[in-house]
Amino acid sequence: MKRRVGLFLAVVLGLTMVASAQERLVDYVQPFVGTTNFGTTNPGAVLPHGMMSVVPFNVMGSEENRFDKDARWWSTPYDHTNTYFTGFSHVNLSGVGCPEMGSLLLMATSGKLDVDYRNYGSTYTDEAATPGYYTNRLTKYNIFTEATTTLRTGITRFTFPKGESHILLNLGEGLTNETGAMLRRVSDTEIEGTKLLGTFCYNPQAVFPIYFVMQVSTAPNSQGYWKYQRPMKGVEAEWDKDNGQYKLYTKYTKELAGDDVGAFFTYDTEEGEQIEVRMGVSFVSIENARENLQRETEGQSFADIRKRAEEIWEADLARIQVEGGTLEQKQIFYTALYHTLIHPNILQDVNGAYPQMEGGKILNSGVHNRYTVFSLWDTYRNVHQFLSLVYPERQMDMVRTMVAMYEEHGWLPKWELYGRETLTMEGDPAIPVIVDSYFKGLRDFDVHKAYEAMYKSATTVGKDNLLRPDNDDYLALGYVPLREKYDNSVSHALEYYVADNALALFADALGKKSDAKRFRAQSLGYKNYYSKEYGTLRPKLPNGTFLAPFNPKQGENFEPNPGFHEGSAYNYSFFVPHDIAGLTKLMGGKQKFINALQSIFDKGHYDPTNEPNIAYPYLFSYFRGEEWRTQKMVTELLSKHFSTQPDGIPGNDDTGTMSCWALMSMIGLYPDVPGVPEYTLTAPTFDRVVIKLNPKYHGRDQLVIEGKPIGDNQYIKEIILGGKKLNSHRVTHEQLMKAGYIQYKY
Amino acid sequence: MKRRVGLFLAVVLGLTMVASAQERLVDYVQPFVGTTNFGTTNPGAVLPHGMMSVVPFNVMGSEENRFDKDARWWSTPYDHTNTYFTGFSHVNLSGVGCPEMGSLLLMATSGKLDVDYRNYGSTYTDEAATPGYYTNRLTKYNIFTEATTTLRTGITRFTFPKGESHILLNLGEGLTNETGAMLRRVSDTEIEGTKLLGTFCYNPQAVFPIYFVMQVSTAPNSQGYWKYQRPMKGVEAEWDKDNGQYKLYTKYTKELAGDDVGAFFTYDTEEGEQIEVRMGVSFVSIENARENLQRETEGQSFADIRKRAEEIWEADLARIQVEGGTLEQKQIFYTALYHTLIHPNILQDVNGAYPQMEGGKILNSGVHNRYTVFSLWDTYRNVHQFLSLVYPERQMDMVRTMVAMYEEHGWLPKWELYGRETLTMEGDPAIPVIVDSYFKGLRDFDVHKAYEAMYKSATTVGKDNLLRPDNDDYLALGYVPLREKYDNSVSHALEYYVADNALALFADALGKKSDAKRFRAQSLGYKNYYSKEYGTLRPKLPNGTFLAPFNPKQGENFEPNPGFHEGSAYNYSFFVPHDIAGLTKLMGGKQKFINALQSIFDKGHYDPTNEPNIAYPYLFSYFRGEEWRTQKMVTELLSKHFSTQPDGIPGNDDTGTMSCWALMSMIGLYPDVPGVPEYTLTAPTFDRVVIKLNPKYHGRDQLVIEGKPIGDNQYIKEIILGGKKLNSHRVTHEQLMKAGYIQYKY
Repeated sequence: MKRRVGLFLAVVLGLTMVASAQERLVDYVQPFVGTTNFGTTNPGAVLPHGMMSVVPFNVMGSEENRFDKDARWWSTPYDHTNTYFTGFSHVNLSGVGCPEMGSLLLMATSGKLDVDYRNYGSTYTDEAATPGYYTNRLTKYNIFTEATTTLRTGITRFTFPKGESHILLNLGEGLTNETGAMLRRVSDTEIEGTKLLGTFCYNPQAVFPIYFVMQVSTAPNSQGYWKYQRPMKGVEAEWDKDNGQYKLYTKYTKELAGDDVGAFFTYDTEEGEQIEVRMGVSFVSIENARENLQRETEGQSFADIRKRAEEIWEADLARIQVEGGTLEQKQIFYTALYHTLIHPNILQDVNGAYPQMEGGKILNSGVHNRYTVFSLWDTYRNVHQFLSLVYPERQMDMVRTMVAMYEEHGWLPKWELYGRETLTMEGDPAIPVIVDSYFKGLRDFDVHKAYEAMYKSATTVGKDNLLRPDNDDYLALGYVPLREKYDNSVSHALEYYVADNALALFADALGKKSDAKRFRAQSLGYKNYYSKEYGTLRPKLPNGTFLAPFNPKQGENFEPNPGFHEGSAYNYSFFVPHDIAGLTKLMGGKQKFINALQSIFDKGHYDPTNEPNIAYPYLFSYFRGEEWRTQKMVTELLSKHFSTQPDGIPGNDDTGTMSCWALMSMIGLYPDVPGVPEYTLTAPTFDRVVIKLNPKYHGRDQLVIEGKPIGDNQYIKEIILGGKKLNSHRVTHEQLMKAGYIQYKY
Repeated sequence: MKRRVGLFLAVVLGLTMVASAQERLVDYVQPFVGTTNFGTTNPGAVLPHGMMSVVPFNVMGSEENRFDKDARWWSTPYDHTNTYFTGFSHVNLSGVGCPEMGSLLLMATSGKLDVDYRNYGSTYTDEAATPGYYTNRLTKYNIFTEATTTLRTGITRFTFPKGESHILLNLGEGLTNETGAMLRRVSDTEIEGTKLLGTFCYNPQAVFPIYFVMQVSTAPNSQGYWKYQRPMKGVEAEWDKDNGQYKLYTKYTKELAGDDVGAFFTYDTEEGEQIEVRMGVSFVSIENARENLQRETEGQSFADIRKRAEEIWEADLARIQVEGGTLEQKQIFYTALYHTLIHPNILQDVNGAYPQMEGGKILNSGVHNRYTVFSLWDTYRNVHQFLSLVYPERQMDMVRTMVAMYEEHGWLPKWELYGRETLTMEGDPAIPVIVDSYFKGLRDFDVHKAYEAMYKSATTVGKDNLLRPDNDDYLALGYVPLREKYDNSVSHALEYYVADNALALFADALGKKSDAKRFRAQSLGYKNYYSKEYGTLRPKLPNGTFLAPFNPKQGENFEPNPGFHEGSAYNYSFFVPHDIAGLTKLMGGKQKFINALQSIFDKGHYDPTNEPNIAYPYLFSYFRGEEWRTQKMVTELLSKHFSTQPDGIPGNDDTGTMSCWALMSMIGLYPDVPGVPEYTLTAPTFDRVVIKLNPKYHGRDQLVIEGKPIGDNQYIKEIILGGKKLNSHRVTHEQLMKAGYIQYKY
């Protein structure tokens, strides 16, 4: 029923002339990668860090779908194996693990008006996507759909058959679990409104509004609203013919509010008639949504906007040029880069306005971007380090954003979503992100304010510590004891150790020696958890004894596990990146460490789908003579888990973190210690990689990496850094920037 | 459990000092009259023709209530026999037969916050009401409640016990069957929003928004929203703890929209602490609701506003002064006057803005009042004639409003409600209302536009005739045949005859002789329905034969009846007020007419609760020597059906029509032919009645009526009109205004 056509066919379909003899990087991007196997990416039209995304929504309304958003824990508007399309959702998340966003559902139908998505959805064919563009053909209606986007405005074009046709905007459904919307007709061709979003990861108070203005290019013959009428009881029910049904409002033109409301536009279309819909959004106000729409799209055709979107993507992708490697490797690489550049995304309107973090004020970001969607427990591991290297001006604005959040809300972000602290996952991950940036020369922010913020979460005791809720135990005992069966106590503490290590480095840099000493000492508390008996970390009880019974395998496949969050003791036991030497000593020396780490892989305890053990393969390179294991494991993992297919990401992309792992692994640089400006090196996938640098931050304009394994010589024999042989497989950011050139020999 | 205390006790309760040695007319008003026995009045605080009313809402939430709004066809926010109070509803209808309005439910509670009205409601005691004021004590919470009002703003004061206390605004429930509301926190002490109202008499498209601004006098300790979460299914349901419950939003402060939403304000009150709530409304916008609130209440205390409300009522009631009569008679009289002055009510804001009739525009009423709530099938029989006599400047604005509705919408109103034509009941009742006013000298409106409007509904053929949907039959046959079992065909036609008689008179007055001839001929078509066999009117089929079988008693007690709406053939057969002479001839002469009419009363076929036969008692006075029957029947009906008790109105007050029947009957003037400026006279209840007239319209400043029956002399022997003996018991408006004085002798 459904067939994804190649880019070539999409071009043949004649929508835009994308003819170029020259290589275009956007052509390597495969937007369907990660759109099944719980990768939770989507093939929608989006710009780098764009507020808007226009995504085919196919996760509700039909039992023929393999996955239904309400039938299980479900977090993406699209799955490639589903077949029932119910419209385009506007503003979506890519690579998250909880249901959220994915609303303002825009559908086109032909024939008799039906506003029930269980009826009006359609299977589709001729599906294709390129950066900034998506298209399909609705088989039920023979309607051709296309979507493109600007930063804050979605543009959708429908090509209709002859006859009665409809454009529907459904505000009652969406991926989000929040309900409630208001809409208002502005004119024959414009409606505006607001919808509540939120409860990310079922946090009931993390809710926020989205505002929109929607314009259709052609005035309809008729239009109206609908609202599902909650079922009445008793005699009342007998008299109301709309009871328990979708009521159509054909004459009413003012505000309509409700749990399940929508608007329809009805046309008498000619064969091939095109109607375009533009949806501007804002998180500040309806007026700003309108201004965003106007300033971003006025005077521009669908083709103009699509072309501009492609140019923006091309420019962003071109920050890294690769040579050598197969077509598939290039596709994997640029697709990973594409996925890495989606979040965090901008929050401010064209006029700079954005909603205060956890407050009611409207603030202004001035000349800077205000970012949102900080899934920091994920992205602090590699995404921000990558951005600091390749897009430092963006990372700079993200750091500014984080410090501003502290000023607005009193806390640095943990998992921030459109001005809400969702408190998802654990730890204090903004600390390593900011410290890492600082050490890489990204210092155009209020450094002392940032330190103040970090110091607050590291030292505040009692229930008032939003970021470290178990700080009393942590400070008193040096670890977090298990107080409730699934309180993830060890995972919490491990995150604090990493953060405190970064904070100690930062304190040192700011001349705060005693603070530095204190935090460094705290960062070593992980030793409390080390169990000689198992050779792993192991939960501890408040009385200081280990949890018993204990099974280090428990927690595989996301099963609940005392002390550990989303993983087993194996997935966490090497997660002490800042003190590998100390952990090695605990474990009985290098060989025991290597054996234990290798056995994680050999015995299938490594989880390629989640973050805690994501840097494990790189730990071998701390030990002379064992670096080949890093190269072997990384190559194997890349080859096994990343592909150009819809299941080509190993599990949830985690707002680009999984993609970024592949990306940096393919370049051959990995930042395995969050907050510490160092990389572990591995054999790159390409003959030559040229990364454009920003002289303002990096002191030079490019970094060149050369030399991939050839033939039987799989492992690095020699590394030449800036013309000098490097005595290690680890390198500091400063060394790298000074050198500007790495050469690998095999 | 519940006890209504007298005014004296209310005064003793010490809330306001209402001490006066002088007689006050407001003290005669008994706002509880008509609040049970389906009278559908209410004891809420309201001004004459006020947009706002603040009404104790006691028709939902408890099985201990005798009547539940959803368990049956129910049309009033309050019933005196109910016991469970769930708050004050803002903006209500008085005396209507369909569920509508009665929303913006404001409640006060103490103790733990609970936002479910099934839990938070309370029984009450110490209930009392005077014009512009209502009070009770909530037994569950020991909260003392008081409400007063301006034209567009409700003011409620709660006196709390010590402890945790709450003010709740429920936008999810109401008497209206429409749902959907949006609210937004403006500040600690102010919220604003809009709620959808409508579907009066289950007309699905007759919907419209109300806008509000609500201010509390004291900033709360905490506040938030609630929204009922529609039940989820499957796995989704397991994760959302608010699934199928009222979710509290404690941190969210922006727009909240939904089917069932509300807001709470939480306080830590001292014993006896008073908190006041002011609710401004508008049918135009939130901004106008705020302006209404500010301009009407700024700088005024609760006591000021209550006092002003009382003064306004006192001044209005004082347009008619009565002497003699018992206390009970005075109470019945002024209560009837009170109920007659509630609808129609003003629609425009303080700045003159109002919503276009059946359109999206906002218009301005300038220096005039724009009225709404025209239940014309009821009120065209006496309310507008009464207003023309006693409050002609208001009737003048109502006529202007009706003509403006034609200009805005293309049709005169039938049953207009807040800018919507609900098309409830039948006929073309605006015609007699406007014509009657015209003939009484109320001519400051676009007379030719009015005639154009009337001519349109009287002559338009086909489906496009909104007011006379069966005009094709009516014009072709001279009557409306029965085409569907319960199509009320005879009732429709009878209304058209009355309207066409009025229209003929109007055409004559405007010099349109041929139109006049045509409409006069049409007005006599009732003869088609006369059945010699039964001596009644009887439905006719399209082929010209009478409906058979036929039972002239069918239709009693609102049972369905072919051809007749809400009544039997008996209730309609004398409803040819404009041609009593012709009907008499049809019936075989005076004696047969008198016998038949008398038997309606004697055999219990007269329905004192509904309009079609409401003027029957007055028809005797067309016949010399039979006038005593009018006096006898009117006296008996007044005595039997009107009292000072809650069941003191015989059935639905029909926006004052029933009350107005009593009122005019007690004065001794009744306008039994709608559209014809004449009155039938009967013995007044009082020794002396002085009605203030408006010299601008009436040429004099008062009308005096003297002489009530004394002792055994029950029936009028002689009528002296302006010093001259009157040879009839009927009088024209012109005669009456010229004379200014009627004296009755017995």
